[in-house]
Amino acid sequence: MNPRLYSFTGGDDGPWAVRSITAIHGEPLADCLRVRITHGEDVGTGVWSLRGVTSNERYVTTEEKRQLAAVQEPLGRPEATCAAMIPIKKSDAWWALSQEERKAIMDDQGRHTAVGLEYLPAVARRLHHCRDMATAEPFDFIAWLEFAPEYERQFDELLARLRATPEWGYIEREVEIRLACG
Amino acid sequence: MNPRLYSFTGGDDGPWAVRSITAIHGEPLADCLRVRITHGEDVGTGVWSLRGVTSNERYVTTEEKRQLAAVQEPLGRPEATCAAMIPIKKSDAWWALSQEERKAIMDDQGRHTAVGLEYLPAVARRLHHCRDMATAEPFDFIAWLEFAPEYERQFDELLARLRATPEWGYIEREVEIRLACG
Repeated sequence: MNPRLYSFTGGDDGPWAVRSITAIHGEPLADCLRVRITHGEDVGTGVWSLRGVTSNERYVTTEEKRQLAAVQEPLGRPEATCAAMIPIKKSDAWWALSQEERKAIMDDQGRHTAVGLEYLPAVARRLHHCRDMATAEPFDFIAWLEFAPEYERQFDELLARLRATPEWGYIEREVEIRLACG
Repeated sequence: MNPRLYSFTGGDDGPWAVRSITAIHGEPLADCLRVRITHGEDVGTGVWSLRGVTSNERYVTTEEKRQLAAVQEPLGRPEATCAAMIPIKKSDAWWALSQEERKAIMDDQGRHTAVGLEYLPAVARRLHHCRDMATAEPFDFIAWLEFAPEYERQFDELLARLRATPEWGYIEREVEIRLACG
């Protein structure tokens, strides 16, 4: 097992209660009551199960990486009882671009990393990659984000700002699952 | 199954006869007589089996990508009866670097892509990524390269030039398997 593998399973059990599942782009994910996160392979049952691995950064600059490391908080803070799970699939056109073309689009207007940085340390985040696994996965990434309830409005704003960027023109499937712990 | 998955199995059968297996860095791979390449999962038996997926480019510039596309040849040319399979694992230190630090090291002295370009179209190449699969894989990449027998001396030179670059200081395991078709 890859030690960087995480499984996200939607079903009837798990610590995270589903508040909403919204298809932002493309096909939705089936409704479920709860989500559990397993470090490694999830051998249990569920309505759906998605897997991804954490990996090296692909787009942040050395300076952005330093800034992120300086302010980011870990997952699992007691006050961060709200979460969003956002699986995303980008288009073939995106993946056919060169690294520098993709980076330029992420920096254009949106400035993905710079915008994200404005919402740290309130939002804790872990990104999981699904595109290069041996199995055919329905998404390229699973973003997992945690924050305190009083921060929800700012979190909505963060998502709206990112979705208004040119980068989002390359997203062909995106589902937003909002959760609460407990 | 990921449609970009390839399996490389060393054993007693397959179209590629093993001429040598050399551990360049770190632990060797077990000796075998032949190697077969399967598009997808290999469900047969062998002495070892390595898997990887082709993926988007990470380091070439837009201009290098254009140059590569203009001169690269496909695998399977009748005259390209020699091959090298080179599984590689880079160090944790490498993967902890930012994208721009890794790119800078690849461009330093060695100029990985520029050097590689000098040997095209004679050498046909496919790179397979193993680092972000759900399973723990012993290597990060599997490079597969094909060329005609009369080009072997230049191919040796290509490997020697790449191995003399600063990038190779981050390689902690590398095995070179030389093969002939038929």
